[in-house]
Amino acid sequence: MTLRLSTADADFEDRFTAFLATKREASQEVDAAVREIIARVRAEGDRALKEYTKRFDRFDVEKAGMRVERSEIEAAYEATDAETRAALELAKERIEAHHRRQMPTDTRYKDALGVELGWRWTPISAVGLYVPGGLASYPSSVLMNAVPARVAGVERITITTPTPDGRLNPLVLVAADIAGVTEILRIGGAQAIAALAHGTETIAPVDKIVGPGNAWVSAAKRQVFGQVGIDMIAGPSEVLVVADGENDPTWIAADLLAQAEHDTAAQSILMTDDPAFAEAVAAEVERQLKQLSRAEIAGASWRDFGAIILLRSLEEAPTLIDRLAPEHLELATAQAESLLQRIRNAGAVFLGRHTPEVIGDYVGGSNHVLPTARSARFSSGLSVMDFLKRMSILRLDSGQLRALGPAAVTLARAEGLEAHGRAVSIRLNI
Amino acid sequence: MTLRLSTADADFEDRFTAFLATKREASQEVDAAVREIIARVRAEGDRALKEYTKRFDRFDVEKAGMRVERSEIEAAYEATDAETRAALELAKERIEAHHRRQMPTDTRYKDALGVELGWRWTPISAVGLYVPGGLASYPSSVLMNAVPARVAGVERITITTPTPDGRLNPLVLVAADIAGVTEILRIGGAQAIAALAHGTETIAPVDKIVGPGNAWVSAAKRQVFGQVGIDMIAGPSEVLVVADGENDPTWIAADLLAQAEHDTAAQSILMTDDPAFAEAVAAEVERQLKQLSRAEIAGASWRDFGAIILLRSLEEAPTLIDRLAPEHLELATAQAESLLQRIRNAGAVFLGRHTPEVIGDYVGGSNHVLPTARSARFSSGLSVMDFLKRMSILRLDSGQLRALGPAAVTLARAEGLEAHGRAVSIRLNI
Repeated sequence: MTLRLSTADADFEDRFTAFLATKREASQEVDAAVREIIARVRAEGDRALKEYTKRFDRFDVEKAGMRVERSEIEAAYEATDAETRAALELAKERIEAHHRRQMPTDTRYKDALGVELGWRWTPISAVGLYVPGGLASYPSSVLMNAVPARVAGVERITITTPTPDGRLNPLVLVAADIAGVTEILRIGGAQAIAALAHGTETIAPVDKIVGPGNAWVSAAKRQVFGQVGIDMIAGPSEVLVVADGENDPTWIAADLLAQAEHDTAAQSILMTDDPAFAEAVAAEVERQLKQLSRAEIAGASWRDFGAIILLRSLEEAPTLIDRLAPEHLELATAQAESLLQRIRNAGAVFLGRHTPEVIGDYVGGSNHVLPTARSARFSSGLSVMDFLKRMSILRLDSGQLRALGPAAVTLARAEGLEAHGRAVSIRLNI
Repeated sequence: MTLRLSTADADFEDRFTAFLATKREASQEVDAAVREIIARVRAEGDRALKEYTKRFDRFDVEKAGMRVERSEIEAAYEATDAETRAALELAKERIEAHHRRQMPTDTRYKDALGVELGWRWTPISAVGLYVPGGLASYPSSVLMNAVPARVAGVERITITTPTPDGRLNPLVLVAADIAGVTEILRIGGAQAIAALAHGTETIAPVDKIVGPGNAWVSAAKRQVFGQVGIDMIAGPSEVLVVADGENDPTWIAADLLAQAEHDTAAQSILMTDDPAFAEAVAAEVERQLKQLSRAEIAGASWRDFGAIILLRSLEEAPTLIDRLAPEHLELATAQAESLLQRIRNAGAVFLGRHTPEVIGDYVGGSNHVLPTARSARFSSGLSVMDFLKRMSILRLDSGQLRALGPAAVTLARAEGLEAHGRAVSIRLNI
């Protein structure tokens, strides 16, 4: 039964706190097994990849060829209808246009002393993008990860994707090609992460690995972190819809179900100040559920992790929203803009009654890779910044060194770092 | 014996590749012990903190009080000479002025369709800053971590620091106060990280933990990552000095030793096109070593991990620099600016003959928390960005939804996500 909370209830604070602490994923203990896979790929390279792929994906990757061929990509285009291809191209263009605006600028300035300071942004050279197989093999996610990397100027973008029984999702190939991906490798799992991080005879190592994956892939990303950069570790998706009673309950129910159909561990929350509206939405969720092909997944998610939170007033929303720190936040109210100004923690905000979160999944232009599991408290969605790094720049002349140097010598001595002090004093003859 | 490489040697590529792969730290297997500490702090709160502090730091934190009192901070000011205090204040002002320039701006715009897109930056609410005890208890690092957090607008900055036998470093207290730190807790180790991440009866949890630490602290940060954000995992420090023969060998030797005195695992590398200059620097390192109080540490670092790389021409430098991706890079050459333009991977660059890296450690204004162990390939030094997160914003009206919606429906169907498609189509009556 879907949870109902009301801020008018005496036990609201306790129940809301317990709700915040709900874990939606059982943690899988795969660390030791993943450690062994990484060690074997490091030691044996392609031979280990071949064996693991035989075992887990049931085909001979040596025979199939590690790299997807141009002819396979052409065949994938042939297998894609014109409408889908056009939609992928529209999405790519919109994502590209939006992410171009995120490009930071280099800075160089002189302070009052004349000391030059600044920074310079440069792209990461080579990035690996993990694309899951099976249910979660989404061409839209290929665009959302690869396009910002291209915009940032990453030279080599390597996709790895599991191909169970050797079968590839043609839409992933088409999306990768549209996004300008450099190469696509027919391997998946922890072994693919190990190959991207450490390289093998046929795979050059990358500098950073992004993209979602199962427990094995996530554990492998954690273990290779440091050797390469990684993006966030994504959890199951979630939406919080804040809606007043003026909304059409069928629309809001559809938004809740769009999130719920992702995964039984997904989470959809409705927050409203209108009890009758809340009941109308709840009834509509049940009605629409009956029509869905993924009714079992969506129903389990709504029943186990969904929630309806009744407010006495929408004025109560911002504090609760910040504590939930939702990945996706719909503000389907007349006061969306003023609410937005009072919110700190959310991955992406969808304003007004005509911005269903699903638009952001595909064609809005903003990124759909967003912080889950309350991590919007401290992190942001994917952007071009994830594919750039900043070099800081400092330049003094002898006069400026004379002005600032003595303070550096003082601090070096206070920290017991004599050689630090000498690197300055030797230049000043002090 | 310090390594010598020359690009003129036939085996240079092999030897340089091996040099790049050198591990400077033995990895300590503390994961299981750290997991137990975190579990106990979660289960028992303050009681566990008290026990661990008794065991590891040999004092009663309950009796001493978890929080450092204002009177202790006042006493620390008393114990600090005026020159050191003035140097800390100068450093704080310069760090603050520089980091203010890093503040990103919010954006909101309409695209050709009239769709509104944008983003809004907000500070992280509460940040924990770990300050190591013992040798690595540096007041300068307190400033480098806390000042950017304050500039970003973080409301609560909590320092945790081990106080072996109950003893605090007064300069850490003074630096924390100057930087505007909110509270200072007298606990350290993995137990302090656990307390910051999960909270106890007396400690409110934070959203992100930054700052360097030993193997236990680093392992704890990795384990709580996800529950809270963390900064990079810092390794031993390193400098690469690129110098032509026009430099004073005594200056360059002093720069190499300033890095080497940090830690036996620190690394100092000289790259030059002048063999006679290289020998003069090597001789000078040996001479200056004799005068250093930390000669043993600096000598071991230079002998075990230092290197002199001879180039046929400085034109060879950029490619090798990018492969080394040094934390600190000094360009002590006449062509520093043109070299800089050709470099992609470095944490911080110090230009010209009068910018010893040590200035950047203390009073340059730029941050001294920088990516180590070749991670400048994919990450940047600490900045205000580490204390902010970005909310993305999207707003469509009904006409724009009509324009973009059909493509979203097409992609949702192509991905088998029927409820995604319905969230749009129900609004369009399609």
